[in-house]
Amino acid sequence: MKKRLKELAALVGGTVVGDDEVEISGVAAIEVAQAGEITFIASPKYLPKLGETNASAVIVSKEITPSPKPLLCVNNPYLAFAKILTLFSQKPYQPKGIDPNAWISPTARLGQEITIYPFVSIGDRCWIGDRVTLYPGVFVGEDSSIGEESVLYPNVSIYPGTVVGKRVILHSGVVVGADGFGYVKEGKKNVKIPQMGKVEIEDDVEIGANTTIDRATLGKTIIRRGVKIDNLVQVAHNVVIGEDSIIVAQVGIAGSTKIGSNVTLAGQVGVADHIEIGNNVMVGGQSGVGHDLAANQGYSGSPTLPHRNYLRATTVFPKLPEMRKTLIEIEKRLKKIEETLSSEGKEK
Amino acid sequence: MKKRLKELAALVGGTVVGDDEVEISGVAAIEVAQAGEITFIASPKYLPKLGETNASAVIVSKEITPSPKPLLCVNNPYLAFAKILTLFSQKPYQPKGIDPNAWISPTARLGQEITIYPFVSIGDRCWIGDRVTLYPGVFVGEDSSIGEESVLYPNVSIYPGTVVGKRVILHSGVVVGADGFGYVKEGKKNVKIPQMGKVEIEDDVEIGANTTIDRATLGKTIIRRGVKIDNLVQVAHNVVIGEDSIIVAQVGIAGSTKIGSNVTLAGQVGVADHIEIGNNVMVGGQSGVGHDLAANQGYSGSPTLPHRNYLRATTVFPKLPEMRKTLIEIEKRLKKIEETLSSEGKEK
Amino acid sequence: MKKRLKELAALVGGTVVGDDEVEISGVAAIEVAQAGEITFIASPKYLPKLGETNASAVIVSKEITPSPKPLLCVNNPYLAFAKILTLFSQKPYQPKGIDPNAWISPTARLGQEITIYPFVSIGDRCWIGDRVTLYPGVFVGEDSSIGEESVLYPNVSIYPGTVVGKRVILHSGVVVGADGFGYVKEGKKNVKIPQMGKVEIEDDVEIGANTTIDRATLGKTIIRRGVKIDNLVQVAHNVVIGEDSIIVAQVGIAGSTKIGSNVTLAGQVGVADHIEIGNNVMVGGQSGVGHDLAANQGYSGSPTLPHRNYLRATTVFPKLPEMRKTLIEIEKRLKKIEETLSSEGKEK
Repeated sequence: MKKRLKELAALVGGTVVGDDEVEISGVAAIEVAQAGEITFIASPKYLPKLGETNASAVIVSKEITPSPKPLLCVNNPYLAFAKILTLFSQKPYQPKGIDPNAWISPTARLGQEITIYPFVSIGDRCWIGDRVTLYPGVFVGEDSSIGEESVLYPNVSIYPGTVVGKRVILHSGVVVGADGFGYVKEGKKNVKIPQMGKVEIEDDVEIGANTTIDRATLGKTIIRRGVKIDNLVQVAHNVVIGEDSIIVAQVGIAGSTKIGSNVTLAGQVGVADHIEIGNNVMVGGQSGVGHDLAANQGYSGSPTLPHRNYLRATTVFPKLPEMRKTLIEIEKRLKKIEETLSSEGKEK
Repeated sequence: MKKRLKELAALVGGTVVGDDEVEISGVAAIEVAQAGEITFIASPKYLPKLGETNASAVIVSKEITPSPKPLLCVNNPYLAFAKILTLFSQKPYQPKGIDPNAWISPTARLGQEITIYPFVSIGDRCWIGDRVTLYPGVFVGEDSSIGEESVLYPNVSIYPGTVVGKRVILHSGVVVGADGFGYVKEGKKNVKIPQMGKVEIEDDVEIGANTTIDRATLGKTIIRRGVKIDNLVQVAHNVVIGEDSIIVAQVGIAGSTKIGSNVTLAGQVGVADHIEIGNNVMVGGQSGVGHDLAANQGYSGSPTLPHRNYLRATTVFPKLPEMRKTLIEIEKRLKKIEETLSSEGKEK
Repeated sequence: MKKRLKELAALVGGTVVGDDEVEISGVAAIEVAQAGEITFIASPKYLPKLGETNASAVIVSKEITPSPKPLLCVNNPYLAFAKILTLFSQKPYQPKGIDPNAWISPTARLGQEITIYPFVSIGDRCWIGDRVTLYPGVFVGEDSSIGEESVLYPNVSIYPGTVVGKRVILHSGVVVGADGFGYVKEGKKNVKIPQMGKVEIEDDVEIGANTTIDRATLGKTIIRRGVKIDNLVQVAHNVVIGEDSIIVAQVGIAGSTKIGSNVTLAGQVGVADHIEIGNNVMVGGQSGVGHDLAANQGYSGSPTLPHRNYLRATTVFPKLPEMRKTLIEIEKRLKKIEETLSSEGKEK
């Protein structure tokens, strides 16, 4: 596929500086881009590379004139890059049908134009939507449904009764609907609380490799529309994650916690159970959330503080030994002064 | 199934306030419970909801009279809830036999009334106990044994020579018996130490999705009776976890560490290698255990402190910038006083 | 297999004290070793056990005479142990051929003497090297290659276009080449950045169970020769890990970070995106790396400090409440002194 630069400008809502008729047939990183390709500069500090790249055009955030290259100027170069890369990389879906080595319950209902690879298992009464792709080793337990155009990569396990929305992407090794971790002690013995609830994954969710989403004890664990979850994340029973939230790798969210919409939890964050996190909250990497977090703020640390307070305290932390030494010296000096004053007092 | 409230009271050792003949056919959360269902109130703060629920009876911790609803009063409402939910949710096991698409070594020995789904692999000389269920994609390596009534969910991998006890539940993606992580540097090159030991999982253990339990270098990695492990936990070679311990999601336990019985490690805890943790210890979320922990205590922090000390120090942490400022001011005031005294001294 | 002690000494470059003709047929831990076996003492504190073991010989780090046992004296007992254990445990590779229940694209090219178990999937145009072993449930996506003598354990998923080197070991549940986690916000909506790059795993790499290595956005994610990665590790898009580095369990490495050669990241370390870590760096467990780390040093903490500074500050941390109390007392004493001086001043 080839597109003229002015066509790309129209696609992403940008303006062209230089030759807007130049033909583009692909996207590449600035160091390796070749003639015919477009590249991008997200940060002004890389602007000097403009003169070095072999790319035929460059996406930038501001008009820079004169420029050695045709420029595509946009508000958000990274967003324009994503859209243009999508344009050039998206292949039309081609259904491959149902491999005879898949195992499909006779009571399952299958949509149109689906792709089911070998060694897939589909349980009783499942519903598989149109244009769904199930890769080898995918297990879909009974009474589950998979919405239109969703893709389940190899070795994904869907426990019974799960609802997966449309255009959902589940990467390899994702486990949806395993029992929540619930026990009550009777003496020292752990008595299992049956996990009778479900998991519901709404439309346009993407979940990374080997992430686990547990079923609710009663009721539902819910991943709302547009949520993106990275690899190796743990989502416990009865958690709700609000729309468009971003959950980075290795985050753990404990039972019954409610996360607002448009929240970002950075890598390795831990959130305790029964917490509420407000909309638009950002939590820094490795933070430990032990209490509710108000909306529209950033937090960091374990336990979490408002991000600015965390940064200030963290900066002082390495000075602790020196501060302790100072304290000891001050006490000596104080004692000396007090003795001086006291002896003066006596003298009087 | 229907049970009269007095029958449930007998089951859980509780007393009834109100109509003990009311018929119960299910369990639900307090907000959604309908007539015919029982619900529970674990915390006194939810008692006001007693008047709002449609449930036909409520499990509570104390006798509250008069009550708008029949009450089932018990010492531990959560435990009673678990037992009653188990009663209503447990379906009798129905063996489904061996699917012809499973691959089973002719030298494997299989028990009675088993359920083996398609795409299961069972290696040479394995022993599969009575009423075991192996879901699609389960791999059981040669010379392994799976005890009676155990359930291995889809895509569980059991490496050769593993012993799994009775009534064990392994959720999807669990890996048991992969090589421990052992290398010796020869110069910069990493020389692999062959991992020749095994893993033994005793009776009544449950292990969460995508958790990994490594085989020992020599000897055994042992998960003792009744241990419950959550999702995405790492248990390294030669670790021993004592009876009835609870290991929450994303915990990592390094090589040769011994964990006592009835221990709780909260989410994302890390434990260094060659550590001993005593019986009945509780370790708070995200803690880092770098030395032995004495029995019967709570610990938190990274590195861990006794829990109370941790809380105290943590409370002061955000005040560090203010403390530093105070220190600097104090030094100024001290200097001023010292100069005053010194000049007075000179004056004299 | 039996070897005389002098033969083992020649293998590992050591010297024998005592009978160098004694025959050894295996290796065991010091407590359980029997006659005919060799054991080892890595730390001098275990030397008293020399007199108690039933082993026929002991690997030690220094010559100890007289000794009740034949000794094999070497510079690095642990390395000698690894080599001798390898000698006794290594079984010659026996190809098992291609199981008829594997699904192999007609356009895939297969090497000599391979072992392909049931329920393996190999996509179009893949190349599988000589003596490769693919266990049940392994998926190799189209256009991937697996080098000679590599072993992929059950349920490993290799996404399309991945390059795996020679003698690579991938443990169960490893996912290589899933999409990197890349989105751009358009308003609150997350726009996916297509992940068009690849993953390249060089020779002699070992990757632990359920670890995930994401494909690059553009270009390559690269795991260099001899790298050893433990279980449940997350390696994001465009990361490069240098030769012979050791990445311990549950580490997370964010996008585009470059890690030098011979680096060690201990368990649960988190590394932010676009970081550079120099050669020979060691990072302590649970550390959070938020900025570049210079070569040849140790670091700990979150955020990381040079290891010694971290230890010093950490030692003071539990004393924070006491320091705060002291500060308050000092302020009172200061105030009193200032008042005294001020009143004296007035008196004058």
